[in-house]
Amino acid sequence: MDIVKHPYQPLNNRINSLFGISFPIIQAGMIWCSGWRLAAAVSNAGGLGLLGAGSMAPDVLREQIRKCNAATDKPFGVNVPLLFPQVEKQFEIIIREGVKIVFTSAGNPATWTPMLKQHGIVVVHVVASLKSALKCEQSGVDAIVAEGFEAGGHNGKEETTTFTLVPLIRKATKLPLIAAGGIGTGRGMLGAMALGAEGVQIGSRFVASEESSAHPAFKQKIIETGDGDTCLSLKKVGPVRLIRNAFFQKVQILEDACASQQELQDLLGKGRAKSGMFEGNIEEGELEIGQVAALINTIRPAGEIVREILEEFAMARNEILKQEF
Amino acid sequence: MDIVKHPYQPLNNRINSLFGISFPIIQAGMIWCSGWRLAAAVSNAGGLGLLGAGSMAPDVLREQIRKCNAATDKPFGVNVPLLFPQVEKQFEIIIREGVKIVFTSAGNPATWTPMLKQHGIVVVHVVASLKSALKCEQSGVDAIVAEGFEAGGHNGKEETTTFTLVPLIRKATKLPLIAAGGIGTGRGMLGAMALGAEGVQIGSRFVASEESSAHPAFKQKIIETGDGDTCLSLKKVGPVRLIRNAFFQKVQILEDACASQQELQDLLGKGRAKSGMFEGNIEEGELEIGQVAALINTIRPAGEIVREILEEFAMARNEILKQEF
Repeated sequence: MDIVKHPYQPLNNRINSLFGISFPIIQAGMIWCSGWRLAAAVSNAGGLGLLGAGSMAPDVLREQIRKCNAATDKPFGVNVPLLFPQVEKQFEIIIREGVKIVFTSAGNPATWTPMLKQHGIVVVHVVASLKSALKCEQSGVDAIVAEGFEAGGHNGKEETTTFTLVPLIRKATKLPLIAAGGIGTGRGMLGAMALGAEGVQIGSRFVASEESSAHPAFKQKIIETGDGDTCLSLKKVGPVRLIRNAFFQKVQILEDACASQQELQDLLGKGRAKSGMFEGNIEEGELEIGQVAALINTIRPAGEIVREILEEFAMARNEILKQEF
Repeated sequence: MDIVKHPYQPLNNRINSLFGISFPIIQAGMIWCSGWRLAAAVSNAGGLGLLGAGSMAPDVLREQIRKCNAATDKPFGVNVPLLFPQVEKQFEIIIREGVKIVFTSAGNPATWTPMLKQHGIVVVHVVASLKSALKCEQSGVDAIVAEGFEAGGHNGKEETTTFTLVPLIRKATKLPLIAAGGIGTGRGMLGAMALGAEGVQIGSRFVASEESSAHPAFKQKIIETGDGDTCLSLKKVGPVRLIRNAFFQKVQILEDACASQQELQDLLGKGRAKSGMFEGNIEEGELEIGQVAALINTIRPAGEIVREILEEFAMARNEILKQEF
């Protein structure tokens, strides 16, 4: 167990209370990158680690939950994309294994939230639009993640950025609000809180951690990714932010030639995400990462990343408070 | 002269010093919306007003500068899109009329900056990418505006959002930095400063002011614009964020059918922006506005907008200050 010590007091906020954590830094439950090692490391550092069930067969998920339980006595959760074919089986395992926190994404929060709540599970839903946030409120979720256009992986068709989406949702709901998309640093965390968020969900930065299950070649690719090197692609199939590699160029050529959804689906095939992110096929795989990759220059232990974010947050906060006004 | 009183001390920062203003709130010099009434109102309120030369014939610009000079004794500036055909004539007038601040956009900052600097003019260049920001530094500009994907009107092909672009440019240059795109409130201003900006440029919010020269029907349309109602369009011609009106739908149909750049140019024709924003042709005109329109619900005097932004900035700053950490 690798517990990181911080000089900071736990922030007194609703996200910390909701999850029983010290710092409102949530590690996104990303497919192929978020196994028990990463989730336990973030939770041990005082944030909230999430297992990414979207790339786990039910048996694998069960094993991952058990390993995570063994590696931390702090709270952790599971992220479940609701379009996953085995979602019912996943939830059975989550309930049976006693997981207390579930983040759902890519689907309708009304479908599963009541059942999960009946089992005493804290439910958070990820949205990319104001409309979806209002659905969350009606569905009885405990908190909302507002994820902007700049985020890696699957995203909304509205293309609303974090800077607009967070205050828009903040005005429309009283639910605890977590910002995601473009956030990988302490300055980003402070910026998100200024906009009205109470916590942050961070994906890309934790993909580039030592404990993430991303292939080393993918981690290295993130380091090399600069401004403009990702793009929201495959809009006809379902928008997803990818690194502009050889596979992306093939998609681009098809899209420029007005290819049908089916043609794009055929090119995509099956297993591109696993191939790229887990197996390290950097040119032909699907590499899901956020724009914030341009700010990421190191691969470090996840606990150190949490500490660095908190240090920068404190520094940036002091800068703002020092200014006379 | 309509000078708004504030309870706030001028912020001690480089943007204020550079322009000789009280608050680092810059009103964007938008085509068809930013005449002398708006610029003078913002400058009189302690921010920096800009005339939008991109929609002014040289004679009109001269007249607007003279009227603005008569309406305020505070600093104001002119925004010049460098691709404007009469840019040389514009600069002649700007120099002859004694304008001291020029914002340039949509072009290479190396072309005109040295000449303007020789005339003692403060030069600021607007960029949408890290690469362009580095060019600014080499060109000797005095400050940079980092404008994110969420901004209205013309934009970069990198699609980098404010949340990513501001810290990225902050890390790469020591120049004074102004954030733009998605900002229309005090929370947005604080968020931008948390990310490393020293000031904000605000467009959409000031289009919806009483003094803006936007057609009343366009102002009303902004009030009605919600989440997802704008889109970065016309990417083959030159990306521009527009409201999804009937004209936008026609562009969409052509783009979905893989139309050529020429076909799109033919549909666009000439005068669409004037028709939409200045003449109030809401369905067939080009309506350039940012995503932040979703947060705009009132049309108010520009000075009151400045005051409201400062009030919210102070409130949000105190919220952050109150949290233990």
